[in-house]
Amino acid sequence: MKYAFSDRTKRFQSSAVRDILKVVNQGNVISFAGGMPYDELFPLMAVEEAYKCVFESGKKTLQYGLTEGFLPLREKIAERMARKNIKVNEKNIMLTTGSQQVIDLFSRILLNPGDIVLTENPTYLAALQVFQSYEANIVAVDSDEAGMLPDDLETKIKTYLPKFVYVVPTFSNPAGKVWSLERRRHLLSLAQKYHVIILEDDPYGEIQFNESETYTPIASMDDGKHVLYTSTFSKTVVPALRTGWVAGPEQIVRMMAQAKQAADLHSSSIDQQALYYLIRDFDLDGHISVLRSEYKMRMEVMRDQLSSLSLPGLSYVVPQGGMFFWVKLHEQINTTQLLQKAIANGVAYVPGAPFYVSDIEYNTLRLNYTHATPEKIEQGMRQLVEVLEEAYRSLQPVF
Amino acid sequence: MKYAFSDRTKRFQSSAVRDILKVVNQGNVISFAGGMPYDELFPLMAVEEAYKCVFESGKKTLQYGLTEGFLPLREKIAERMARKNIKVNEKNIMLTTGSQQVIDLFSRILLNPGDIVLTENPTYLAALQVFQSYEANIVAVDSDEAGMLPDDLETKIKTYLPKFVYVVPTFSNPAGKVWSLERRRHLLSLAQKYHVIILEDDPYGEIQFNESETYTPIASMDDGKHVLYTSTFSKTVVPALRTGWVAGPEQIVRMMAQAKQAADLHSSSIDQQALYYLIRDFDLDGHISVLRSEYKMRMEVMRDQLSSLSLPGLSYVVPQGGMFFWVKLHEQINTTQLLQKAIANGVAYVPGAPFYVSDIEYNTLRLNYTHATPEKIEQGMRQLVEVLEEAYRSLQPVF
Repeated sequence: MKYAFSDRTKRFQSSAVRDILKVVNQGNVISFAGGMPYDELFPLMAVEEAYKCVFESGKKTLQYGLTEGFLPLREKIAERMARKNIKVNEKNIMLTTGSQQVIDLFSRILLNPGDIVLTENPTYLAALQVFQSYEANIVAVDSDEAGMLPDDLETKIKTYLPKFVYVVPTFSNPAGKVWSLERRRHLLSLAQKYHVIILEDDPYGEIQFNESETYTPIASMDDGKHVLYTSTFSKTVVPALRTGWVAGPEQIVRMMAQAKQAADLHSSSIDQQALYYLIRDFDLDGHISVLRSEYKMRMEVMRDQLSSLSLPGLSYVVPQGGMFFWVKLHEQINTTQLLQKAIANGVAYVPGAPFYVSDIEYNTLRLNYTHATPEKIEQGMRQLVEVLEEAYRSLQPVF
Repeated sequence: MKYAFSDRTKRFQSSAVRDILKVVNQGNVISFAGGMPYDELFPLMAVEEAYKCVFESGKKTLQYGLTEGFLPLREKIAERMARKNIKVNEKNIMLTTGSQQVIDLFSRILLNPGDIVLTENPTYLAALQVFQSYEANIVAVDSDEAGMLPDDLETKIKTYLPKFVYVVPTFSNPAGKVWSLERRRHLLSLAQKYHVIILEDDPYGEIQFNESETYTPIASMDDGKHVLYTSTFSKTVVPALRTGWVAGPEQIVRMMAQAKQAADLHSSSIDQQALYYLIRDFDLDGHISVLRSEYKMRMEVMRDQLSSLSLPGLSYVVPQGGMFFWVKLHEQINTTQLLQKAIANGVAYVPGAPFYVSDIEYNTLRLNYTHATPEKIEQGMRQLVEVLEEAYRSLQPVF
C-alpha cells in the first residue's frame, strides 16, 4: 500500500549524514559528531537520591500532572533565571520534553505555511528541520563573529516581516559563537521597534569556560513581551530526563500549553519531580563548575591538536564555552564527501553543510569535544589529521 | 504587543469546561470528571525497584537515547502484543510520550489542511483537538452499540476519501462501547478495499471486567499494512511515566520517528528503561488482574446508584471494561449548563457536548468510576442525583 503522507513530510530532510552517523555509534569509531555530554560526569548518585525523594512522597506523585509541568520545579527555574536577571514567575514557565519541544511548540503556534523565520547562518540543524516541517521559509541574516549584522538584520526585518528571529547567542551550535552585548541589545531594540518575537535558544549558556565572564541573555533586557527564552537540563544534569523549559510572555506560554496538551498532554512528571529534588538537595552549581573545567580541559586538548596544524585555509575560533569547534578548511575540500574516509580511518564529525540556510560552505565541519576522553580526543584528532592531510595532498593546484 | 498566532491555533478549542474542571481539582468536590486511575493501586514499590535497576546499570543509561525509544522495552512490548495476535517486531514499534503523542505524530505525517478524518460520534475529545489543530475536517460515521454502521461507513469512505478512520473499538471514551467482532472485520475489509488507514486507539483494552472474554484488536486481523495500533502504560502502570507506544507498518512508524525527532528528539529514556525492568521483574499481569476487579467493583457501585433512579429518558450501558459510564438524560436537560450546579453541590462530571463531532446531544454526560473510592462514589452519586432530580423538577411539561 502506498501511503499519502502530508505535504509537510516532504520537507523532512532525508539525512544521509544521519544514516552514516547511526553506524558510527555501533562501531569502533571515535566520534566527534554528536552533541553529547560526557557520561562519566553524570551525577548518578544525586539523580538516584532525587528519585528516592519522589517515591517517598507517595503514590499520588505518580498520577497525571499539569500540562505546564510540576509547579515546584517551575518555581526553582524561576529562581535560577532571576540570577540571570530574567524576571519570570511560574506562570511564564512551561516544562517540556527537552528544549527541542519548545522550538516545535513555538513554531506550531506561530507559523503558517510561507511565513518567514530569520536565523543565523549556519545555525542549529534541528531547529531548521522544525521550521521547515511547518513549511516556513527561512532567511539567513548576515553575521560576523559578534552576531547578526545590524544593517542586514533591519533590512531583512523590514523586507520579510518575519514571524520571529531564532538565535543561539551564547556558544552557538554549530559555530561556537558568542554575540557581543551591543549586538544583543540591537536585535532586541529592532524586535521592539518592529514587533517581532525573538526565540532565544540557550542550551549551552551554563557551560562557560571563563567563570568570571557574564553573558547577558537577551531575555534579561526585555520588557517581558518580545523574547521567548528556552534552555534545558540535558547538558547540566543528564539528557535521559529530557527536561527543558520555556520562559516568556504569559500569553505565548499559555498558547503553547494548549498546543502541548494536544501534542502529549504533559511530559514525564516523575522526571520533573526528581529534578526538583535534585536542585533542592544537590550542589548543582558546584557540579556545573566541574563540568566547566572538565569540558574546558577537553576543548584545550582539541585546540592544541588543531593549532599544531599548518594547512592552507584552515580556520577556527577557540570556543569560550559550549560543546563545539567549528572548523573551516581549504575551499576545495568537501567535508560531506570526506566523511566516509574519516570513518574508515576511525573518526567521525558532522559536515557543516546541513547547518546552512543558504550560501552553503562545504568546507566546514563541526567537532564535539565533550563526549570523548582527553586520550580519545588526542587519538581521534590524529586520525582526523591523517585524513585531512591526505585530502590536502590531492587538492588540484590552482593556476 | 499583539501576537500573530498561526491559523491552526484558531482551531484550538477554548474549553470553558476545562477551566471549570481546573477549579475542581483544587476544591472539596468529588470528581467523576477526569480519566484518572486510582492512586492507591499504583505499584509504587515495583516502580521504585525498576528505577533502582536503571541506576545500577550505570551512568551510560542517562545519556541521549534513540528517537524510537529504548530497544529492550520495544521488544517486551512486541512480546506482549504477540499475545494479542498482533505480529510486530521492534522495527514496527516506537515509544512516545503517552498515546496522545501517537495521535499527534500520526496526524502530523498524514494530514494536510482540508483532509478528512472519519470518527465515531461521540469520540475521544483530545483526538478531535489534534485533528482540528492540523486543520482536518472531521466527519462522524453513524454508529450503534456494536460499532460503526457498515453502509454509512462505506458511503462515507467513498464520498470523502478520508486520510484515516480513527476508532476506539474496545471500551471507548466516552461511550464505553465495545465493537462486535463482525464490525471490526468489516471496518478492516473496507480499509483494505479502499486503501484507507485505521488508527486503532486502545488505551483501555487491558481493563476488562470479564477475564474470560476476548476482544480482538483490529490490528491482529490485518496484513500489516492498514492498521496503526496505539496503547499506553498510563492506565496499567502509572501515568507519570507518560509512556505510550505505536505499532504499525514500518514505513509509517519510520516517518513518525522523523517527525518525533523534530518534535522532541526522544521521550524520557530513564522512564522507558524503568518500564522495561518493571515488566521483566514484576507480575504486571497479576497487577492488571487486581485493577480489573477493583475497577469492576467501583463500576458496580456506580451502576447500583444509577439503577436505583427512575428518571424519564435516563439511559446508560453498563461498561464491560474501561473507565467510564456514558449517561443520557431527558432531552431537555443541558448537562453543560448543569455543571455549575453540580459543582456547587460538591460533584463534577464532564458534559457530553465536547465529545461530539456533529449532532451534539447536550443531554449527555461522562462519569469516571476509577479515581474515587467506593465510599466517595456513593456519596458523589447521591450529590449528583440531588442535582439531577432538581433539574427534572424544573422541566417544562410538554403539552
